[in-house]
Amino acid sequence: MQLVTADDVRAAAARVEGRVVRTPLTAGPDGGPPFLVKPESLQPTGAFKLRGATNAVALLDPSQRAAGVVTHSSGNHGLALAHAAREQGVACTVVVPEGAPAVKVDRVRACGARVVTVSPERRSSTARELADKEGLALVPPFDDRRVIAGQGTVGLEILEQSPEVTTIVVPVGGGGLASGVATAAMTVRPRPVRVVGVEPELAADAAESLRVGRRVAWGPELTHRTLADGVRVCLSDLTFAHLMARLSEVVTVTEDEIARAVAALAYGSRLVAEPSGALAVAAVMAGRVPTEPGRPASTVAVLSGGNVDPDIFARLVSPR
Amino acid sequence: MQLVTADDVRAAAARVEGRVVRTPLTAGPDGGPPFLVKPESLQPTGAFKLRGATNAVALLDPSQRAAGVVTHSSGNHGLALAHAAREQGVACTVVVPEGAPAVKVDRVRACGARVVTVSPERRSSTARELADKEGLALVPPFDDRRVIAGQGTVGLEILEQSPEVTTIVVPVGGGGLASGVATAAMTVRPRPVRVVGVEPELAADAAESLRVGRRVAWGPELTHRTLADGVRVCLSDLTFAHLMARLSEVVTVTEDEIARAVAALAYGSRLVAEPSGALAVAAVMAGRVPTEPGRPASTVAVLSGGNVDPDIFARLVSPR
Repeated sequence: MQLVTADDVRAAAARVEGRVVRTPLTAGPDGGPPFLVKPESLQPTGAFKLRGATNAVALLDPSQRAAGVVTHSSGNHGLALAHAAREQGVACTVVVPEGAPAVKVDRVRACGARVVTVSPERRSSTARELADKEGLALVPPFDDRRVIAGQGTVGLEILEQSPEVTTIVVPVGGGGLASGVATAAMTVRPRPVRVVGVEPELAADAAESLRVGRRVAWGPELTHRTLADGVRVCLSDLTFAHLMARLSEVVTVTEDEIARAVAALAYGSRLVAEPSGALAVAAVMAGRVPTEPGRPASTVAVLSGGNVDPDIFARLVSPR
Repeated sequence: MQLVTADDVRAAAARVEGRVVRTPLTAGPDGGPPFLVKPESLQPTGAFKLRGATNAVALLDPSQRAAGVVTHSSGNHGLALAHAAREQGVACTVVVPEGAPAVKVDRVRACGARVVTVSPERRSSTARELADKEGLALVPPFDDRRVIAGQGTVGLEILEQSPEVTTIVVPVGGGGLASGVATAAMTVRPRPVRVVGVEPELAADAAESLRVGRRVAWGPELTHRTLADGVRVCLSDLTFAHLMARLSEVVTVTEDEIARAVAALAYGSRLVAEPSGALAVAAVMAGRVPTEPGRPASTVAVLSGGNVDPDIFARLVSPR
């Protein structure tokens, strides 16, 4: 299997420049070891996913550009693809499951995308059918080399912004972000930069997969238990291969540690995180990732997204 | 009276570089005209005040550096001065009033500053006495040319980051930020960049002062009514002179508009704002500042701070 290269990530960085926000590094919350946060929640669509989607759209050939793109994520990737397509003048179709939150679907529509609603089990097959029938280019949320390369630009920026960095911590869901950032870290070899993935212990399929050396899937009957709804998905063969080859390790955090990280980010760093987005910060705050005393800039945690349900957020930030 | 010059702001920018976060421009919330936000809430101390304090400390002469600095703000400026002084190896004393929130005083102490507690009415006299007796350099929160020049670096960054900008909107409390940003806007003459100040209508002393052409003070019996506790102060002669000469206008917003802006920033821009910090965003969202349709980057609202009381924040972001 051909993995994404460091050059792919560098090329993606040139493509997304000016189309995504170069997020700053800001101070992590108190209450644990000092570290920095990379708030990808500040992208216009609220998550790092805009990077991969933007790179994928920029790589379309002329006939694909004319036909348009399609995906089947109603979450952060669907919104990101709708936004990236509009910015580059390409038509976009997003297949969403019946029962998806209206507020999310409305945001996709507001980006000018066509929304096709189907029953949940027909989501990905419908996207593939539309791709075949209408000649649309399918852009999956993480199982895609263009998308992985785009997400890797988060890592390149961190390496540029903090020459001191030795550890980068990222949430792991489908593994696109972790695959991309671990690839970006190769650009500075032989300087050692560890990339550590973080999962909820209630959806720890990647941790188990890396431990046993083959891809293990956890079903929704297990993963639905975590508040971190954005990482209930499992790795693909492609992202598993990247993580096996390039990730240092995957650590897990408890639900309480996730909840505390969301509140700490709000009051300590003035940032709104969704539970999935706060995983890396939760791991550093809980001491699950080794840090270097007195060198805050050596550890950077990626806050991957901030599109949180208001009921959940209001509860998490209420003083206990 | 000698006003701060555009060159003073440029010199301040060189001094604060690498010591403050270069905050990005991010998308403003939906629900009004499109515009960009400059989130100064992402400074390590949670507010733009770090810029002025950092510039003032950098400008101390060697004997002042050896003696240390003092101020009498228990709010964002006190914390900013404590942080800036520590970063530059200077001793800092902050005079706080009895009854100041423990969480704020603790943060000042955590920056290594000495805290002197006095009755509220003796705050500024005590700071002056300490300055005289111990040879400390007094760094006031806004009535100071070094501080105004430092705050102006927010404006310089906006001009660099958005060459399209024609309107910059800023909260007005003591007037340091508005004075500095209006001065920075002069650096791009003859390109016309309007700087608009925003106050709560319940603490509209600057609006009235500019209207009648002389400095008018509103007492605490009036200004205590606004949720925006950071702007209950009035202008000084120095900031009034800057605003008369350089600010385009001051507009006012209602309490409800402020509250809605805090919630919209949380869910639409993934940013935590204190009520005072959200004033400029509230004004743009409420249509009180003219914007250019189809050109979001032409209007930038400064989110000036995010150190919000958890009880108030949890209430404002709870779904209604």
